[in-house]
Formats: sequence, structure tokens, C-alpha cells
Amino acid sequence: MYRTHTCGQLRLTDAGTTVTLAGWVQTVRKFGSITFVDLRDRYGITQLLFNESLNQQLDEQPLGREFVLQATGKVNERSNKNTNIATGEIELIVSEFKILNKSAVPPFTIQDDTDGGDDLRMKYRYLDLRRNAVKRNLELRYAVNRAARNYLHEKGFMDIETPFLIKSTPEGARDFVVPSRMNAGQFYALPQSPQTFKQLLMVSGYDRYYQVVKCFRDEDLRADRQPEFTQIDCEMAFVEQEDILNMFEGLIKSIFKEVKGIDYTETVERTTWEDAMWTYGNDKPDIRFKMKIGNLKVPATAYPSHQQELQNSPFASGATGFAVFDNAETVLAIAVPGCADYTRKQTDELTEWVKRPQIGMQGLVFIKLNADGTVKSSVDKFFNEEQLKTIAATCDGKPGDLVLVLAGREQKTRKATSDLRMELGKRLGLRKDNEFKLLWVLDFPLFEYAEEDNRWVARHHPFTSPKPDQIATMIDNNPVIENAADYLNHPYSNIKANAYDMVLNGNEIGGGSIRIFQRDLQEKMFAALGMDEAEQQHKFGFLLGAFEYGAPPHGGIAFGFDRLCAILGGSESIRDFIAFPKNNSGRDVMLDAPSAIDTKQFDELQIKLDLK
Amino acid sequence: MYRTHTCGQLRLTDAGTTVTLAGWVQTVRKFGSITFVDLRDRYGITQLLFNESLNQQLDEQPLGREFVLQATGKVNERSNKNTNIATGEIELIVSEFKILNKSAVPPFTIQDDTDGGDDLRMKYRYLDLRRNAVKRNLELRYAVNRAARNYLHEKGFMDIETPFLIKSTPEGARDFVVPSRMNAGQFYALPQSPQTFKQLLMVSGYDRYYQVVKCFRDEDLRADRQPEFTQIDCEMAFVEQEDILNMFEGLIKSIFKEVKGIDYTETVERTTWEDAMWTYGNDKPDIRFKMKIGNLKVPATAYPSHQQELQNSPFASGATGFAVFDNAETVLAIAVPGCADYTRKQTDELTEWVKRPQIGMQGLVFIKLNADGTVKSSVDKFFNEEQLKTIAATCDGKPGDLVLVLAGREQKTRKATSDLRMELGKRLGLRKDNEFKLLWVLDFPLFEYAEEDNRWVARHHPFTSPKPDQIATMIDNNPVIENAADYLNHPYSNIKANAYDMVLNGNEIGGGSIRIFQRDLQEKMFAALGMDEAEQQHKFGFLLGAFEYGAPPHGGIAFGFDRLCAILGGSESIRDFIAFPKNNSGRDVMLDAPSAIDTKQFDELQIKLDLK
Repeated sequence: MYRTHTCGQLRLTDAGTTVTLAGWVQTVRKFGSITFVDLRDRYGITQLLFNESLNQQLDEQPLGREFVLQATGKVNERSNKNTNIATGEIELIVSEFKILNKSAVPPFTIQDDTDGGDDLRMKYRYLDLRRNAVKRNLELRYAVNRAARNYLHEKGFMDIETPFLIKSTPEGARDFVVPSRMNAGQFYALPQSPQTFKQLLMVSGYDRYYQVVKCFRDEDLRADRQPEFTQIDCEMAFVEQEDILNMFEGLIKSIFKEVKGIDYTETVERTTWEDAMWTYGNDKPDIRFKMKIGNLKVPATAYPSHQQELQNSPFASGATGFAVFDNAETVLAIAVPGCADYTRKQTDELTEWVKRPQIGMQGLVFIKLNADGTVKSSVDKFFNEEQLKTIAATCDGKPGDLVLVLAGREQKTRKATSDLRMELGKRLGLRKDNEFKLLWVLDFPLFEYAEEDNRWVARHHPFTSPKPDQIATMIDNNPVIENAADYLNHPYSNIKANAYDMVLNGNEIGGGSIRIFQRDLQEKMFAALGMDEAEQQHKFGFLLGAFEYGAPPHGGIAFGFDRLCAILGGSESIRDFIAFPKNNSGRDVMLDAPSAIDTKQFDELQIKLDLK
Repeated sequence: MYRTHTCGQLRLTDAGTTVTLAGWVQTVRKFGSITFVDLRDRYGITQLLFNESLNQQLDEQPLGREFVLQATGKVNERSNKNTNIATGEIELIVSEFKILNKSAVPPFTIQDDTDGGDDLRMKYRYLDLRRNAVKRNLELRYAVNRAARNYLHEKGFMDIETPFLIKSTPEGARDFVVPSRMNAGQFYALPQSPQTFKQLLMVSGYDRYYQVVKCFRDEDLRADRQPEFTQIDCEMAFVEQEDILNMFEGLIKSIFKEVKGIDYTETVERTTWEDAMWTYGNDKPDIRFKMKIGNLKVPATAYPSHQQELQNSPFASGATGFAVFDNAETVLAIAVPGCADYTRKQTDELTEWVKRPQIGMQGLVFIKLNADGTVKSSVDKFFNEEQLKTIAATCDGKPGDLVLVLAGREQKTRKATSDLRMELGKRLGLRKDNEFKLLWVLDFPLFEYAEEDNRWVARHHPFTSPKPDQIATMIDNNPVIENAADYLNHPYSNIKANAYDMVLNGNEIGGGSIRIFQRDLQEKMFAALGMDEAEQQHKFGFLLGAFEYGAPPHGGIAFGFDRLCAILGGSESIRDFIAFPKNNSGRDVMLDAPSAIDTKQFDELQIKLDLK
């Protein structure tokens, strides 16, 4: 052993004992003939004091930042105590030391506020990982991992490893593939998720399965996506949706408790997908703050369960005389609390914000509900005060609020309103890092229609079951649509899935479904997605086969482990919570991977490049 | 919920309560108007009793093997108790039932003694996984996983995930590679182990790391090798070999305790590599039984630490007159306990056994040490009784033992003697499944010489450090050898590694080393293995770089998780302990993977086939 204690361990009660520490030199300070060194390891920092007697050795072997040092000496009570750190009451009076390894001057400082840029820190990731901020993230990640495993173990779940070299069944995202040398000309795929394997395990009778497992998707990397990512993957048999919701809100509450010390005792709120879209314009709403959307005008085919509410809208009776609204498919409003006193400059800035290409709206109508009860708007010409108040009422506008109204095509307007709500929530400090609000979003549509490909796609995945009372609708109808634009009129548009997402602070942290477990229904689903029998058999023959031999009802969920950790750590970036992340081009800049391979490797795999 | 209890849960104390069970129909038996069903789930089997009143429903919906059934009824004390199973005192008097899913007749019986052959069970792995024998294996695997994590957590280790898409650095085994779409023409590799990453984590200060992690090697598959396998991978900083040995024999003892209920209180034995080879002819000896090798004649360059012992050999003074021995490089003996009374037929069979091509010896000399003190041998013409007793003494032959002597080339003879020892140990019942004996093998050679390639190869891997007092030998000598056959005379042949293997019952279950942490020594190692500077930089520049910024002394170990589980489960085959294994051609016959991929996938990856 190179040490008797860690650098975070010694306390005043250890004073007088002789100990050996080993770690990294954080700082070297000289006062007269005395040298102070802060020695750092994973556990903390301890101050070392080198007396004059060691000066000759220090001259011969000068210490530098990040040198690896072993030091033996007596623990001493400090006169000048540092109450900010746990070891701040003591110091080590060094009697002997040894430099275990030297260090070149690091390319950036190993401190919370480092001077290193992103690229440099990625290249020298092994140094970036020394920083306290990064270490805390990885410690949090491990704590979440541990808490999840403990909870699932207590509930009778078994960790069962599923294979990484599987079959390519492109459907949805792109597979990473692996050429097989022993089966030349053929390829494995890396799993996008262990979905079919966990379902097979249910067929096999392992009725509670989990895994903390790497998954792979070869997609163009938007910010904060990684080609390899980690899921907490779970599945249960003989359960209904309600059982899953209870089990897994329990999991997240247990993680809150173990990792953050938070007792999340309140009931987890639930909303349907239609309600979430109607009220927040978003299927993963952040419910830490209100600012609910007022729906003034919405097309008749959208959100059938809410059409009734439009009867009370000021637009219910038809044209208002304001062409922008009258010509729009959708008109939506939100009330920004306490912002009625926004200046012209401020409202102009908001207008510019919604006109940015990412948002893409034409403009913004605002209504100031002044604290004195008066109303002022940018559309005073077209609406009287009564009408403006009616509009404001749809989004619960109160005196002192600024009501913002957006108009345009349904999807774009709803998304823009949601984005504006989130932006203002952030600006107004309503989205607090240390506040956590969970939400279940339920009853998603089973299908989406890809107009460009003129075919149905599974919103969740092809293994998700419809609501039991809609199985007949699915079986009895021909999925083919003559005119793609008519898809909203097809019965499939209204089939709801037995699916659920768990949302935390406006982020989807997990999602799952009750699965199809009947061969005929699974075949109907595949057919609806455009797979003929041969393709079904080629891609999923094993699963259809398994469903013939006594498949139990089952369902499950998968949590995005990286994102969950990031949110719990109060960060927007999952990269900060991954030990060795890749950049936005899918490169590991530290390793310089991917890279060219040898001729011999090409020969053995019997492939060659075919660069365009 | 589809059930109130599991099929393994109900006891006599539940009698009188109404419960609902769900599971699979194991058997259906009809006695007169009454039907008995054994209902099975992961937790056990419960007997269901269907009275006459349900006969009509049973006629309309007949039950078959492996049907998924939900049944509600009252728990009843059985008159005819089955003491073999935990639920054997009760039965369920069914009042209602529902078939949740039907099953076709399974292709083999779901029983411990199944009638299904290997191939059929691999194809229908989801049915094979239902068998109790397989389920017990996966449960044991999970228990080992859990015990390992708990021990390592208590000791302050952190689970840190390392990447799967890394850089190809072919060295030793072949990499699986993954073409990159975003970086066309370039490839990732799947990790053969997280070796360099865990070393970087030590450089980063995470001084106790572990991971239960998938690794990949594209090697021709011998029996019981899988292209993907799992390691318990560990690394520590600021430690010496002794610290590692203590920490990880603690890990295995803890697994014994938690998983098998075995208190392994004895000290774990240790041997050097030379001693193991000398005494057992094997670097992973099974020490559950003795039968130590008597070294009668050994070449002067082999096993320098044991040459002294040969002074006492009957061959020390030169020729014996028996040409087979006199012409042989090596002569070795073992004493088979209590087998002096073997018949001619039995000794002939042993001779045939060593002459098989896998063993490849020319013949076998035997000496019967009769219980009455007389001696009879197949070489009575050449040796007198005194000489035969001297030979027998080298392998501790006692009255009643059969001494077997093998002669030939050193390597082949030593391996043959070891194989013979293992075979006889097995035949004599000396290798008991329920006995566990651990052994550390230490002081491996750092290098091996690949005569065919005329170069040194790292016996463990290129990151293993030499013994501290041999660093100078390594640095100061030129590794190049003019005449490959002379390699035993090169100083590198005698450099011992700071490496250790943990052996359990004759199987290497783990291995590791104290690592090189100095850049200059690592460069010398790479150079000794034939890598020039450019190649070093291309393949391992990141590691050499990391060693410049304060790398601490460190070392670690990796356990073969699949094999460890198999041995603890008393099996020779790791495949039985993997949920979805591949066959000897690297195929998943259930999925039918690997398989062809689409033209679109080739186009996107910019590669094409180049079949020979």
C-alpha cells in the first residue's frame, strides 16, 4: 500500500498519529522557508507542510502541479483552520516524501472553473475527469445506478444480460453493423435496445427483468445525443399498465430518496397525450410552472376529446374581422405572469424571438392585462376590451399578466407556443434546478402517418399494444390509405396505445408500453407498418414463433440513464455525465476513433471500401 | 395485476383464502370427473384442481401443455401431500379460469431431463430458458453479479461505464470492427476489454473502479468460447501486488459465501508460475488433489529455480541404459494412488490414451508399487528395484500406487503429464464439483517468444509491468534476437511479470497485473513487441500522453464472469450460463444472425462485399 489514509480522511482526532498519503499536487505555495502543498485525491484535499529540513530535497526534486506524491508525516492541528473542507482542521507535517511520477504542465487547470475549452478537455479527457465537477457527475451516476439496482432487486427483478451481436432489423433508427469474419458476407447489428430479448424473457417466464445496458443508434447527432447510450431497461409479465406505473414511479422516487435525499411523497400526476398537447403544446410538458395554453381556434380533426371546449372560444362563432386570426388554422394564447409592464422593446424582442427560423412564426399578438384592470393590446383595432378579456380568460390571464397570442398552422403554432412557454418559464426563473416534478403521459396515439412515405409508422415501436377496446378497430380495418392527406379520417388515427412516458421537468426520462403478446395481432401490426409476410418472418420470425408457445401478457419501460443523471445533476448536457463521450461527429477525439483499419482486416472480413 | 400470488408462494397457512394465480400449464391429468393441472411460473409449481362443475368449460376450452392460464379459487389442504415441493401441502380448488394464451405443442419437453437436442434447444432458446435447470443457472449468475457488486461497493469501488465504440488496435486477438457512416471509410472497434480505459481512470484519480462488462473477440471459436463474453473488470491505484491479491481473494470468498453458502476461511494458496509448471505441468493447476509430478530429467534452460532439485534425480549422473529415457529431453512421473493392481488391459488403455493425437506421446512406462512392498514395471529389463523405487520417490509414490512415466520433448511431455494427471483425477473422483480450491499463480514470464514471427509477445498484455528489480534488465537490453532458436538465452526470457492469475479447480477465473505507469518503460515495452514510434503513437498515443501528466502506480484484475458462474454451478460449459449464447460458428440460431444487410445499408456505410 502506498498510503495509510486518503486525502479526505484525516480529522482533528487523528492529530499526533503518523500517516502516509498519496495523491496529486494541487498547489505548491512557499512562505519563507516553509512549503505548503495541497495534496488531492478522489476523496479530498489535505494540506502538507514541508519544513526547512526538506528544502534541499525539494530543491533537487521540485514539485509541480499534478505530480504524483507520496508523503509520510505527523498529523498536526492547524493554527489557520479552513472550515470549507472536511480536512481543514489539520495538516500533515511531512517527514519523508517521494515523487511517484512527474507531470508535464497540464494543458488546462484542474479546477471547477477550468480555463480549458471544450475541445481541449475532450482530447485530454483523462485530465478533465480529475476536475471536481466532473467527478461529482460520475459519482452521481454511480449512485443512481446503485439505487436503481437495489430497488429493482428488492422488487424481485433479475439482471439478465442480452446479446450485443444481434440481427439487423432496420426499423425506425439506423443500426450499427458488424461484419462477421466467420460468416463472410453477413453482418451482426448492435442493439438499439434489448426490446425483443426482454420480451422473449417474458415468454420464458422470467417475469421481472432489468438491465443497465448500452444501446446503439447510428443517427445524425443532434446536440446532446450519443451514438452509444445507456438504458435502465425493465420488463414485467402478468401486469397491466397500472402495475407498471406504480412500480416505476416507485423506482424514481427511490432514486430521488437515495441520491438526492428528496422524499417525493406526492402522487405522481398523470395526463393523457391529448391533454398534454392541448394544455402545454408538448408531450413532455414541464409542470413545474403553469402558463397553460388557451386554445382559441383548433382544426376540427385534432384533439377530438377537446373539441367541446372550443364552444366557449371567442372564435366559436366564426370570423372575428382580424384576418391574421381568421385565416389561421390555429390560434393559441399563454399568459406570462406579472409581465404586463413589459416595454415596447421587450415585446419587440419576444416578437423577434418567435420569428427566428427555429420557431418560424410570422408574429406575435400581445395583450397587457394591467394591474389596474385596464387592457392594452397590439390588436386594439380589431377587438374591444371585452373580447380581449375573453381571449385572456382562455389561458387564465390575470391582472398584471402579459398575454401572448400566436396564430398559424396547427403543428407549428402549437410547438411555437410550447417553446415560447418554456423560454419564458426559464427567463422568469420558474424552472428551478432543485425542484423535481414527475408526470406520466398516457394514451399516446398508436400510429403516426408518414405522409412522405405514405405509410403508418409505430409511434412507440411495433410491439406496443393498442388499448384493449381498440384491438377490433385495428384488426377489422384495412390500413391502406388511398389519399395520404386523408389520414386523420382513417380509424387508425384514433387508436390509442397502451403506452406511457415518464416526464421529469420537461424531459422524457422513460417510456414504455404494454406489449402485444398475440401472434395474430402482432402480424396485423407488422402488416399495418407495411411489412409483408416474408419480411416479417425474416426480421421477427423468432418473436412470432415465441408468441405461439404460450406468451404471457407483459409490458415494460426503459429509462434513458444518461439523461436521468443529467437532470438529477442539474445539467442540460448528458455528455457531462459520461466518462468518455463522443463529440457531435461521433468521434472520440481522445482516442482518435473511428480510424482506418489494416488491409489484413479488410481481407479477413471480405469487405472493401466503396467511397462515393 | 393478473395474480395475487406466485405459483411458489402458497402454504398450508393460506388454506381457506381465495387467490388468483397465473402461469404455464406444466401437466394436465384427468381422474374421473376431476382434472388436475400443475401450474408453473418462475417461483414454483402449484397444483390446481378443477371440479366437475368446470368440465363443460374445459371441454370447450381444453388446456394443453404450456398454455398460459389464469385461475382463481380457494386454497385447500391436500390429502395427498407432495413433500418434494414447497407448495406440496396445498392445492387450489379452481372456481374460475381464463386461458390468457394458447400454446402449440412445444418441440421438446420443458423438463430437467428434456428430450430436446442441442440444436433444437438453441433454436427455441425461449423455451429452453423455461426449464428449471437453465433458470437455476441464470439465477446463480445474477446472484454472483449481485454479490460481486455489493462487495466492491463496500470496498469503495465505483462502477464507471467505458465506451463500446472505440479504436481498433489489433494486438493479440482480432477486433470486431464497426464501419462508421458519419466518418466514411473509418471504423470503430468493439473492446476486447476496457484495459486502457480503466488505466486512464486511474490516471484521472478514480482509484477504485469496477464494471461488469461485455467484451468482444473475433477468434475462431473453440468449444466453450463465445465471441461476446462478460468480465468483472477491476482496477486500483496506489497499490502493490499484495493489496490486489488480498482485495480480490476477498471478492471471491464473498461470492462463495453469498452464492454458495461456503465459508472459505482457509488462506488462498499461492504458487509461482515456475513452481506450478514444475509440479503440475500447468499454469492453472487443479489443487483439489495431489499427484504431483516427479521431475526426473529436464533441459538445463527450463525452470532455472528448480534445476538444483534435479541433482537428486536418478538421471543426474547421465545415461541409464534405457534409450527411450536417455534420448528424451524430459522425463516426468506421476503416482496414481491405489492403482497398483491395474490389469494389463487397464494399463494398455492408459497407453492408448497418451498415444491419442491430442496427447501425442509415443508410449507410457508404468511401475506398480505393490501393497506388499514389491515392485513390478514395464521396464524391469533396464532398472532394478532400487532404481524404480528412486524414480517412484520423485513423485511421492507409495505402496499401492501406480507410477506412470512419460518421456519426450519438454513442452509436449509436460502438457501430456498434466493432461494425464487431470484425466486420472477425474476418473478417480478426485475432482469433486462441490469442492472449491483457490490458487494464486504468480511471477509469470513477462514475455513469450513467437518463434514463427521471430518476435517477443507479451504473455499477459503490453501494459503489464516487470518485477521492479528487473526494470533495468528490460531497459538496458536490446530486444532484438539474431537467431530465434536462442531466445531462452536472451535476458528477456527470464524477466518475470508483476502478474497474477486466480485459479479455481483447475480453471483460470481471473488474471491481472500491476501496470506500467511510466512513459519511458511503456515505450520500451511497445518497442520490444516490435512497434515503432509511429505505430505506438497511432495506437496508444492517448495512453502515452496520459502517462505524462501524473499517472499513479496502479494495477487490476479481470474475472471471466461466464466461466466463474459455470464453475460455481458445477458445469463445464459457459453456454449454459448465458441467456442467449451463440453456437460454435458464432451464430445466434434463434435470431438467424449474422445475416445479409440491405443495399441501402452498404450505400450509407460506403463499403461493399469483397468475397473470395
